[in-house]
Amino acid sequence: MTLPTDPIANLATLIRCASVTPAEGGALQALGAMLVPMGFSVERPTFSESGTPDVENLYARLGGDGSHLMFAGHTDVVPTGDEGDWTHPPFAAEISDGQMFGRGAVDMKGGIACFVAAVARHLRSRGKLPGSVSLLITGDEEGPAVNGTTKLLDWAVDKGEQWDAAIVGEPTNPEALGDMIKIGRRGSLSGTLTVVGRQGHAAYPHLADNPVRGLLTLCDALLDPALDAGTNDFQPSNLEITTLDVGNPAANVIPARATAAFNIRFNDTWSVEDLQAAIHNRLDAAASNPRLRPGKTEAIEFDLSWKDRPSPVFLTRDDKLISVLSGSVQAVTGRTPALSTTGGTSDARFIKDHCPVVEFGLVGQTMHMVDERVPVADLEQLTQIYERFLQDWFA
Amino acid sequence: MTLPTDPIANLATLIRCASVTPAEGGALQALGAMLVPMGFSVERPTFSESGTPDVENLYARLGGDGSHLMFAGHTDVVPTGDEGDWTHPPFAAEISDGQMFGRGAVDMKGGIACFVAAVARHLRSRGKLPGSVSLLITGDEEGPAVNGTTKLLDWAVDKGEQWDAAIVGEPTNPEALGDMIKIGRRGSLSGTLTVVGRQGHAAYPHLADNPVRGLLTLCDALLDPALDAGTNDFQPSNLEITTLDVGNPAANVIPARATAAFNIRFNDTWSVEDLQAAIHNRLDAAASNPRLRPGKTEAIEFDLSWKDRPSPVFLTRDDKLISVLSGSVQAVTGRTPALSTTGGTSDARFIKDHCPVVEFGLVGQTMHMVDERVPVADLEQLTQIYERFLQDWFA
Repeated sequence: MTLPTDPIANLATLIRCASVTPAEGGALQALGAMLVPMGFSVERPTFSESGTPDVENLYARLGGDGSHLMFAGHTDVVPTGDEGDWTHPPFAAEISDGQMFGRGAVDMKGGIACFVAAVARHLRSRGKLPGSVSLLITGDEEGPAVNGTTKLLDWAVDKGEQWDAAIVGEPTNPEALGDMIKIGRRGSLSGTLTVVGRQGHAAYPHLADNPVRGLLTLCDALLDPALDAGTNDFQPSNLEITTLDVGNPAANVIPARATAAFNIRFNDTWSVEDLQAAIHNRLDAAASNPRLRPGKTEAIEFDLSWKDRPSPVFLTRDDKLISVLSGSVQAVTGRTPALSTTGGTSDARFIKDHCPVVEFGLVGQTMHMVDERVPVADLEQLTQIYERFLQDWFA
Repeated sequence: MTLPTDPIANLATLIRCASVTPAEGGALQALGAMLVPMGFSVERPTFSESGTPDVENLYARLGGDGSHLMFAGHTDVVPTGDEGDWTHPPFAAEISDGQMFGRGAVDMKGGIACFVAAVARHLRSRGKLPGSVSLLITGDEEGPAVNGTTKLLDWAVDKGEQWDAAIVGEPTNPEALGDMIKIGRRGSLSGTLTVVGRQGHAAYPHLADNPVRGLLTLCDALLDPALDAGTNDFQPSNLEITTLDVGNPAANVIPARATAAFNIRFNDTWSVEDLQAAIHNRLDAAASNPRLRPGKTEAIEFDLSWKDRPSPVFLTRDDKLISVLSGSVQAVTGRTPALSTTGGTSDARFIKDHCPVVEFGLVGQTMHMVDERVPVADLEQLTQIYERFLQDWFA
């Protein structure tokens, strides 16, 4: 029996599957083919929901009693952009100057390839696991994230699965392998703000009510003052106005409505509900105290709607999980990883309701870019880190 | 010889020509047919310019020596909207309850119909004019205004025409005939403001530069403080932001650029050049003192462009012209008209470079609306006002 102990070979196999979300592209099939010879039981549930594409997923478990560790990730990748811009074809897994090129090399087929190799090496050297390992792999992380990790978790729980800890294999290191473990993530909340005015001729502003004036006042209230100053574990919450849209082409017309959309990345100062209430309060206060609106005394009329599925904030406080992973990183790389809560959201936000979860993977610099690539030396090191973690976690 | 002394008949003829800009629709042809029997020499120049529709125009002159009075206006009309929404068809000139319905009834075929009737009555009662009267009529007032009044004026000047005074027959009365003579107009200046930022992920705002923040700061600077407090002759200058456009559909993306467009209606505090310089100074000052941009100290990068053909402000100070017209209005209606500089721009802004100009016509309430209409009693009164003006002006 040949075990998939080589992360470079594993990654090449996965990159050669063109699994751009929501296409499976053969990637989960290839992953299953690596896991079955190792003794994993592999299941491939597909989930559907009206209005979103069907998505294939994979859940594989090895072992029975003892501690149950989950490795979570995704085989889907973002589009390549213009393939002609790539130095090496994005689905060829060519190696040049010590780096393997390909879409998904770091985000995150590379992490999966290393974890599979780590388990294979553990089995090769020790024969069996002293506990259980599961791989929870979706094909919908880069897409709407509707038919992926959340449903896969529910499906597994319905089967009776329980986990003691989880590692998400997303690229977490900003510069070099060993830089950073993610132990939490800010939440994300998006909203749309519309101010309703009264259309009219630009020469007769007193007969109209320009909604742009009201929108400027409300946008200022969204941005100032800052939401908080940060906490011990998190950077300050931040709000960005992501678009402004009126769409009036006529220079002599005062428009009827004006819209802004915004996104908030928030820390553990806030629950989703508290934050929504605070934003509403800010807008209500600013709306009833209008500025920039000469001759108008009535409150600004606005509508605020929230985008579905906000991401709550989370912070993992499992000392064993964090210290074993940090120790593994340190032992292999000689570096002490920062314990960070920065950056965007990840599927860890869904897993944290089931067990403690941390994130550690490759260096993220080329993710989502043309010429996404990974040093093959990093693949070997990350495999060693995961193998060390398995050894110490189950010790 | 039958002279066109009846403004109701004249207007019916003109309304039945569907002359929606830039279509001539037979309206200038019909007008010429009224003027020739009165002795007018009628010319019909057509002007062209690349990128705009060709436009037919009319210039007619009666008389030789003595004072030369211009009547200026347009036979083109704005679109009808859904004709099914009209109580009476928009090009039928039907009379109901003492009102004639039709597109252009008040803006401004009605004014032309009355002026033609006034000259005809003058000729009927006195045989000849003691001076000259010209009609300068365009088919491009409601459109781009490129191939109309400006070119017609240049064309006439090239022929050696000179005028002592002009009346524009636009609807100037807000409520009732006799309310208001326009003796000047604010200028109009439009610009577009673009802030250039740096695109990025909403979770990493320090790696991006959100142009919306800069645009909000600059828009505030446009609106506050007020440009001026008004002058003896004019209301305060006013700036309206007419659109905001970013067009970013992605809630997790910080956009690369953000645009605002604005329109200023300005009074005789300003020349176009002074106003442009003042706006530039405001924006430069605000750009180098950024607010709402935590962590950014560099100036906001912006681009300001001005729309072609700003309208300068003008104010007519010809006492004879104003007092003779006011006196005529008073004699016929018993009301003292306000001498106003409010409202939008008109073709008077082009005429003021050639001679003193005032504006007086019908009541504007239904202009540009469905069921545009004029009381036939107003047509008779306006004809009498214009006739009285001709008599007193040439006296």
